[in-house]
This record gives sequence, C-alpha cells and structure tokens, in this order.
Amino acid sequence: MAESWPFLDTFEPNFRPLVVIELAKGTKEETIEWFTKRIVDKKANGGEYNMIFCAQLLVKPLVTENGDEHIYLVGASHFRLLLGAETVGLVKECHDNSMRTFTYSSRKTFKDFADDNHNFLTMAECQYIIKHELENLRAKDEKMIPGYPQAKLYPGKSIVRRLLTSGILVQIFPLHDREELKKLRHSWYGRVKVGYQPLDEIRCYFGETIALYFGFLEYFTFALIPMAVIGIPYYVFAWEDYDKYVMFATFNLLWSTVILEVWKRICAIMTYRWGTLLMKRQFEEPRPGFHGVLGINPVTGREEPVYSSIKRQIRIYLVSLPFVCLCLYFSLYVMMIYFDLEQWALDYHEANESNFSSLMLFVPSIIYAIVIEIMNRIYRYAAEFLTSWENHRLESSYQNHLILKVLVFNFLNCFASLFYIAFVLFDMKLLRQSLATLLITSQILNQFVESLLPYWLQKRHKKRTKKRMCSLKTDTDMSLVEQVNLEKEMGTYFGTFDDYLELFLQFGYVSLFSCVYPLAAVFAVLNNITEIYSDALKMCRVYKRPFAEPTANIGVWQLAFETMSVISVVTNCILIGMSPQVNALFIDSKTDLILTVALVEHLLLALKFIMAFVIPDKPRDIQIKLAKLEFESLEALKQQVRTTDMDNSEK
Amino acid sequence: MAESWPFLDTFEPNFRPLVVIELAKGTKEETIEWFTKRIVDKKANGGEYNMIFCAQLLVKPLVTENGDEHIYLVGASHFRLLLGAETVGLVKECHDNSMRTFTYSSRKTFKDFADDNHNFLTMAECQYIIKHELENLRAKDEKMIPGYPQAKLYPGKSIVRRLLTSGILVQIFPLHDREELKKLRHSWYGRVKVGYQPLDEIRCYFGETIALYFGFLEYFTFALIPMAVIGIPYYVFAWEDYDKYVMFATFNLLWSTVILEVWKRICAIMTYRWGTLLMKRQFEEPRPGFHGVLGINPVTGREEPVYSSIKRQIRIYLVSLPFVCLCLYFSLYVMMIYFDLEQWALDYHEANESNFSSLMLFVPSIIYAIVIEIMNRIYRYAAEFLTSWENHRLESSYQNHLILKVLVFNFLNCFASLFYIAFVLFDMKLLRQSLATLLITSQILNQFVESLLPYWLQKRHKKRTKKRMCSLKTDTDMSLVEQVNLEKEMGTYFGTFDDYLELFLQFGYVSLFSCVYPLAAVFAVLNNITEIYSDALKMCRVYKRPFAEPTANIGVWQLAFETMSVISVVTNCILIGMSPQVNALFIDSKTDLILTVALVEHLLLALKFIMAFVIPDKPRDIQIKLAKLEFESLEALKQQVRTTDMDNSEK
Repeated sequence: MAESWPFLDTFEPNFRPLVVIELAKGTKEETIEWFTKRIVDKKANGGEYNMIFCAQLLVKPLVTENGDEHIYLVGASHFRLLLGAETVGLVKECHDNSMRTFTYSSRKTFKDFADDNHNFLTMAECQYIIKHELENLRAKDEKMIPGYPQAKLYPGKSIVRRLLTSGILVQIFPLHDREELKKLRHSWYGRVKVGYQPLDEIRCYFGETIALYFGFLEYFTFALIPMAVIGIPYYVFAWEDYDKYVMFATFNLLWSTVILEVWKRICAIMTYRWGTLLMKRQFEEPRPGFHGVLGINPVTGREEPVYSSIKRQIRIYLVSLPFVCLCLYFSLYVMMIYFDLEQWALDYHEANESNFSSLMLFVPSIIYAIVIEIMNRIYRYAAEFLTSWENHRLESSYQNHLILKVLVFNFLNCFASLFYIAFVLFDMKLLRQSLATLLITSQILNQFVESLLPYWLQKRHKKRTKKRMCSLKTDTDMSLVEQVNLEKEMGTYFGTFDDYLELFLQFGYVSLFSCVYPLAAVFAVLNNITEIYSDALKMCRVYKRPFAEPTANIGVWQLAFETMSVISVVTNCILIGMSPQVNALFIDSKTDLILTVALVEHLLLALKFIMAFVIPDKPRDIQIKLAKLEFESLEALKQQVRTTDMDNSEK
Repeated sequence: MAESWPFLDTFEPNFRPLVVIELAKGTKEETIEWFTKRIVDKKANGGEYNMIFCAQLLVKPLVTENGDEHIYLVGASHFRLLLGAETVGLVKECHDNSMRTFTYSSRKTFKDFADDNHNFLTMAECQYIIKHELENLRAKDEKMIPGYPQAKLYPGKSIVRRLLTSGILVQIFPLHDREELKKLRHSWYGRVKVGYQPLDEIRCYFGETIALYFGFLEYFTFALIPMAVIGIPYYVFAWEDYDKYVMFATFNLLWSTVILEVWKRICAIMTYRWGTLLMKRQFEEPRPGFHGVLGINPVTGREEPVYSSIKRQIRIYLVSLPFVCLCLYFSLYVMMIYFDLEQWALDYHEANESNFSSLMLFVPSIIYAIVIEIMNRIYRYAAEFLTSWENHRLESSYQNHLILKVLVFNFLNCFASLFYIAFVLFDMKLLRQSLATLLITSQILNQFVESLLPYWLQKRHKKRTKKRMCSLKTDTDMSLVEQVNLEKEMGTYFGTFDDYLELFLQFGYVSLFSCVYPLAAVFAVLNNITEIYSDALKMCRVYKRPFAEPTANIGVWQLAFETMSVISVVTNCILIGMSPQVNALFIDSKTDLILTVALVEHLLLALKFIMAFVIPDKPRDIQIKLAKLEFESLEALKQQVRTTDMDNSEK
C-alpha cells in the first residue's frame, strides 16, 4: 500500500458513541485493560485478525451514578469506518447509478461521498461494521483471558464470544439515535395514513433483515387481499355449492404460487437497491461461534479457523436428523394421548353429567396446551444447541439449519391436530371450528404477548428509572448516561425468526384448509394490518436497537412458504374430494371419485411447478445489471493479468 | 494497447488449412472477391464486428480437378488464433493448476504455452474460433451481397448466414486431421478392451458437446447395470410376487434420482477440467440467425443487434405454445383412430377368418407407423421454423427451446400408446409385449439406420471417388484435394439431439413401466454398449467432422431426464396398484388400495425432491475452486478501481 492514510493517528475530536459494551460488575482491572487495549490498539498486539491496515476503534468509559466503570462506549473515526465498510464488503451506489462494492480507494466514485460527509454510511451500517470488527477480534497466542484462568483461549477463538460465554461481558448493543428514531416513528406509524411503509428509512435505521421482514409482511398482506375479497361472499351468502369451493381452492392454490414467485422478484428489486443482492456472503468472515483449527481458507487464502465439512455432515445426518425425527414422533404421540384424554373426558361427561364433569371437559385441552408450550421451549433449546454444535461457518447457514429444525416441529405442533380432525375423524364442522378458534386466539394472543405487554412493562420501568435519575444528577453528560441506562434494561430482539414463524403458521391456516374456511384470509389481512403497527411499535419502543444484518432474501423462509403451498394443494384436493357435495356427484363409485381427485391434484401440482419454472426469479433489468457487473469484473480480471504481465515484461 | 503485435502482417509460411468453405458452382467473381476480402482483410473495411485488433484470417483457393475455384481453405496465423481464443473466452489451465480465462497478454501464465508451440490450442478449438469469426462477420453498410441484388443485407446481419440462405455458400465445415483421427480411433474402438472411453481425447478432437454426450452415454450405461443385474432374476425365476415388484420399482425410482444427481457432479468435474464450466456463455456473441435493430448490448456495452424480450415472450406463449398443444392433441387423435382401426381389423378377422383377414391385422400398425414418421418430420420442421422465428439471442437458448418442443411431441408419440394400453385397456400382458417389441425393434433399427447404413454408403462412395481421383492426378497437392473432396460429400452430423433423444426414450422404456418389464434395463445396457461403438464409428467414419461447441452441461436434457423420472414414480405406483397380487391384498375395499397407492406415491415423490435438494450439484472441491475464482475476480475489480484512482490522483 503506497497511499498514506490521512486521518490515522489523529484523535477524532467529536467522539460519537455507536455501540455499548456492558461488562459484568466487578470485572477485574487487568481484564478490562487487556480487552480495551485489544479494541483500541490494533496491529501492534495482533488484535485484529486479517486487517492489514493499522487502524483503531475508539473506546470511552461511561461514568454511571455510583462511579464504577463497567459500561464502555465504542465509536470509530470516519476513516476507520470507511475501511471497515470495505472489509465487510458493503455495496453502495455509484455516480453512474450502478451498485458497486465499496472500496476506500474508489470512494470518490460513489454517490453522496465527501470526506466531510459523515452520513455516507448510515448509523446502522457503522454499528454493523463495529460489531463485525469486535466479533472478529480473535486470540492469537493468549492461552486464557487475563485474570480469568478458567476462561481458556486458543488461537483463532473469538475473544468476544469467550467473554460472553464466561459471563465477563454482559452484552453488546448498538445505541438508538433519538432524533432519527423520532422521525422514523412519525413516518412509520405516527400519523394515520393509507400507504406503504417507509421501507428505505426502516432499512437505514434497522438494517436489511428487519426492513425485509416488514417488506414481506406488507407484501403478504396486499397479496392476501384478493383471497379475502373472494372469501367474504362465501361467509355472507353461506355458499355451500361444491363448484364454488373448488373454484375458490383452485384460485387460492394458483394465487399462492404466483405471490411467492412475484415476491422473489420484488425482493430482488429491493435488495438490489439496498446493495445486499450483490454482497458476497460466502467470502464473509466465519461466524463468532465457529471454531476449528487455524488453517488457510481455500477460497480467500486468508488465515482462519477451518472445520471439516464431512464432520459437519456426519453431525447433521447422524445426530441432528434422528433427534428431530424422534421429537416429531414424540410430539405425535403426545397428540394421540390428548385425543384419547379428550374422548375419555367426553365419555365421562356423558356417563355422569355434573358441573364437575363439564369442567373436566376443558382439562385435556389445557393440559395439552401447556405440554405443547413446554415441549416447544425444550425443543427450541435443543435445536439451538444442536445447530451450534454442527459448527456452521456462516451465520446464514447456521440460521437456515436452525430455522428448518424449529419450523418442522412447529408445523407439526400447530397442524397435526387439524390434520387428524380432517383426515382421520373426517369431521368438517369440528375442523372449521378448530381452525377458526386456533387462528383467532393465536392472533390475539400473539399481538398481546409480543408487543402490548412488553410495551406496558417497558413504560413502567422507564418511569421508575427516570425518577431515580432525576434524584441523582451527578454528571453533565446526563442525557447520554440516562439513555444508555434506559436502553441496557430494554428487552433484546432475537431476530425476525418468531415474526416469520407467525406469518408462516398464518399462511398455513389460510391455505392448507382454504376450501373449508374461506374467511381465514379476511382474518389474516385484518391481523396483518395491526401486526405492522404492533411490530413497528415493538421495534421502536420496546426492544433495544438490534444490530443491522445485511441480507439478500428471506432465505429458508421462501422454501418454507413454497413447501407449505405444495402441501396445501394436496390437503385442499382431499378436502374437496371429501365434501358431501362432491361425494353426491360420484354416488356409484367411490373409486372414480378418488381417481378424479388424484388426477386433479397431479395436474395442479404440475401447473404449480411449471409456473414456478417459467416466472423468472429476478426482473429482467436486475438480471442485466447483475450480468453487467459480472462482465465488468471478468474484464477487470483480464485487465489485471494483462497489467501484471506488462509490468513483468518491463522488468 | 501499447504492446506491439509481433506476428502481424507477416505471412505465415506454413499455412495449415482448418476450415473448408464450399461456394456454389458458378458463383460470380465479384461476390467471391468481396467475400474473401471480407475474410482476409479485416479492420480496414469494417469486416470484423467487435474486434479491436487488426488481424486476419488466411484464405487459399483449392484447385479441383476441373480447375474452377469454388472451394476455399481457411486458416489463421498462430497469433490470430490466440487473439480469437481470447475473444471467444476459452478457459485454459494455468501453471498453478487453476483454470483461467485465456488472454493473449497473460499467455505466459498458462500451462504448455510457448510461442512456438502450435498445439496449445487443440485443432478443434482453432476450428471453433474460425467458425466463430466467420459467423460474426456482419454487414455494416452493404445493402445487398455484391452480384446478387436479391440477397438483401442490413447493418448487423450475419454475412455467412445470408450467403447460406441465398444458396451462394453451400457449406462450411472443419477438416479432419487424419493422423489424430487414426490415433483417436485406435484408442476409442480400435482394440477390444474393457475400460472407459478416452473422453479427454474425444474432447480434443470433437469438442465438449460431443465428448459430453459420450461421457453421458458411458455413465448412463454404467448406472443402468445395477438395475439390469437386479432385473435378471425376475426373468430367470419368473418372479411374480408383488413384494418383489414393489422392491424393484422402489429401488428403480430412488436409483434413477441418485444417478441423475450424481451425473451433475460428474459433469461438473469433467467440464471444469475442460474449462467450459467457467466459460461465460451469456457474454457470447449472438447466434448467427439472430436478427434485430443495431443497438448497444446493455451488459457488454458492445454494438450488436438487439431484439425486445417481450416480443419474444409473446411469440413463445401466444404462437409456439398453442401450436405445440394443437399438435399434441392431433397426435392423440391419430392414436385413437389407430386403436379404432386395430379393433376393427380384429373384429373383421374374427368375423371372416381368412388369409386376407390375418394380413389385414398388420395393416393398422403399418399405417400408424408411417403416419407417425410423417408427423414427426413435419413437426420437426415446424418446430425448427418456430424456434428460429422466436429469434433467440444465444445458440444455447435456441437449442433448449427447440429440444423442448420436439421432446414433448416425441414423448407423446412413443409412450401415448403404452399409456393407453396400461391405463385405459388395463392389459398388462399386452403392455409387456408392446414394450418389449418397441424397445428391441427401435434399438435394432436405430443402430442400423444411424451408423451401419451410412457407413456402408460412405464406403461405397469413397471407393468410387478414389477411382476417379486416381485416373486424374493433376496436382501435387493431391492428398489434400482428395481429402477435401471426400469429406465434402460426407453426411453432416446435425448435433447430439437425436442421440440424446434415443437415450431419453430408452430411459422412458426402462423407468416408466419398470415393474412390468424388469428386463428392459438389460436390453438397454446391451444396446448402449454397442451404441458406444456404433456412435464412435459414426463420428469417425461416416460424418464430416462437426464444429466443436463448448458446453458446460447437457442443458435441457437434464431437465427432461428428471421430469421423466418424476413421471415414472406416478406410472410405477399405478401399475403396482393395478397388479392382481396387490389387488388380492385389498379384496374388501378398492378405496383403501387407491389411497394406499396415492400415499406411497406422494412419499416417494417427497423423498425424490428431498434427495435432489440434499445432494449438492457440484462436488465440494469444484465449488471451492469456483468461489476462489469469483473471489479473485472481485478482488481484481477492487484493485483495478484502486489503480485507476491512484492514476487519477497522480495526475
């Protein structure tokens, strides 16, 4: 590197706190000193892993009311952040409207870039960069964390990860920006308006993963409207003709294919604009939890922990897979016990009718609900442990495997009883009733537990903290101390997993049994409209600000929704085949009925696959832009080889 | 370009003829002059389209026995070929064993490169380069071909294409290399041996498309062996137990999924080694038949004809698709007439039994066979016309659309009658009989018509020509004249389409009704072993040498084979459900039988999709190599921007 770095070694006068590090109270002095030194002072002590630049993060202790320093604010110079943006591979818009990977040396070709414009990187991006740098702080030759001999380190181990697991580090979280948040709140849900969400602003503040979730939620709500509109007359006029049900179900099935395909295109448009579509995730640094022997990454040639993919495959297929299957079996077994109990309670009630016996009728459902909840929690814990043990190199791969595990289990827990009612008991009335009950109660409960309850708790806590604060007043930097103290007590948002899961289950309720209960889509639309607002409230008011996470698509959820829509073809065809109206058409031969249903089902499935195949995943203009970038990078490679060659021949 | 091109303007002393151009006899002098000038003399007259270099091809007339010059030999200097290799984007192996796109300036980093080593590019590659250059000779401002006012030209129109369609140009074909061919023949089928084909040598001589076909044929034969081995005892011991049939069918279905997935991996390994896996086909020049208004390619920024993709979509979906559906319907209609005729002949035979009536029994089959053949030919012609009219930019896209059209029609023609026998007439005995007859006769006929007959014709023709030649002896260059005269009369190999189609239909016979006729795999294996030899003979002895065509996979055939294996799950499940043994198990309720069959079918389909999803398409080491290349090209892009930036700042 022949260039000289202009801002280096000059202390940034206006330190802007971005990320908060909370250490445990009573952390040993030497540990704090070592840790902050590793953060501040980079190259000299091998503090940073693959960073060839000699740059530094800024750390400042936060003096709290009782004077002990266990909270630190982390910031970075503008220059350091730009270098970090290059390391994480941020993609930004250039002057010629194309999206390109940001590099410090090419900074002047980017739109809105100026050496004194500190808004070129959004605050969310800056915080993401700092998080990335902190998480990739890896041990080189330390054997343990200074002051804590039991907290072992080995070369390549993420220091932050070890500090967290050994309890020295309580948490790391990004700070809210009160000004920006206020503006965002106002344009998002502050005024009553009909229109789209400010997705680009959400993305700037919360990052791509969360913006994509809200984008999907909005898109999904709009996509459900046609279904809801068609579903209403079925309820209003109490239509029971079978041909109308067939029409509704067919429309539903094809529509669900179309909306999932179109979402891919819309998602590509959004993430191209945000730059994440072009971000190369496979060249990412390994996730903090990833461990292995220090080796050379065969792709980048950089030094990093490596772990045999065969070992991982063995763990996945020989341990995780059997375990998941066992859990699924167990869950089905519990469901069967529940149905037995239910039957027993019914029999008991019929035999000796009394107040007690009619109360007893509710007991099985209550027990089952509690058992399911417990099972869910235990399984979730086990799934997280197993996925972590599988030792995935990339965060995205870890997430996908975790989601898949939890998804299958939740699917079974939610829908197994409905499947049982529909295809074993053949009780359409009970099915419709259970479906309505499950859908509506789960929606109401979710909205309450997810947002309103935490909001209320948070408000109460805030008042209490404020009172205590006012009675102290020891520092001029009060507002910042106050903010940090407030935010560190807020709940942590554990990612979009539960939000997607809710939508996924809702999609199941709407599509799996659509021909039995066409009104489901109406409830789903109503729920999603309030869901947007309650989720927005949750993000802005209830939780700590989450770290932004760049992402190009909704990942394994796309697959999950598509699988659901394939399963729903099968269930709907069977349901229609079972309806008395259709049965009346095939009085002579039940065989003909089943064969007809099977034929229709296969045709619909074939149509679905053909549609999915024919609709391109990316709009044409995005395809062209991507091809253009690839072409340019190939040309550049040629050019580079040429230049190198010319240099050599000159020598 | 600061470099000077060392070999330019120096005439190559040892002209090596690579490609033969045959013009129509009596072509006007001015046309020949213009055309050869366009080939030889490039930049000055705008002869070459996107070539920034001022290079030239070499043309030499071939003096034939009667002295008129209508055959031209085209060659090129070693230097010109290297530049051409860069233009077409050939990928070669470097000294560090990685595969890289060849560029002239980086030539020294490639394995086996030396300025005097004329074997760095294989002869097939040289011929491909020349073909590419000739086909991309496009009109700039000519309004017509000189001397032929009716042969209109417009800017961007391929000259060679117009010469071909107006009949001035008879053909362009590459010359055989008698030495190399002899060696290849010897190692391929010259000696009796058990072992693999010399695929790398085949690739060097015939190019990747043909080598990949032989690779697939070999792989497919090996993959069929387990099925054949398991199928034999069914015939030997006349097993009729239903559980054995179920076992065979299940194995067959899962096995067919596995072999198709594994083929993708093997194909990736081969094409990586050959460099075509990395060749960027989307940056290819448009195919010669592609026409449109001159415009700028949005990806490369180069000037070339452009054609609206929406117009193409409209042509595909509003014209081609309905036409294909109509043809399919018509073909089914003809089949129904055939079955009616058959029934009528049978009735007639039963009513008045005589010699004449028993002869009449064969009439419907014969008529049907003839009608099918005629329909096939007409349809093939129509499909070619339609696909050409759809105006695809890339040759691969054109091929895929053509293959898809012809495939569907051939599938219906071949299997519709079997489906009818199996699922409408429910006649298992007739099905087995028809299947065996169709499979065996088609195999024998194919081998005869495809290779042995042309070989015999070719041999006869060769003798005749030789005799005539010997009696003339006018030139010292006799052997070359002789060779060209011999080869120009040889048949033209129209690509691997018919060979793949044969394999595809064979795969259909083997898998669609596998549980009815387990012996099909045995016949397929036997056929394929001789097929390898007869196809090899065909390539080396019967046909003109075909132009090499770089390709990275078997394209739409992969999809076709996979679809066939999905359809075969359905057919096999139904066949097993229809077997008397299975029916005997479900005496009480036919409904239960059908439901069980449907359940098993769905489980098998689900298993297939999961397997296809879980088995990665490329082996891990190839994935890493590809990721590494992508990483390098990204880094190069960064580096380039950086260099440009530094250059700018220096100024």
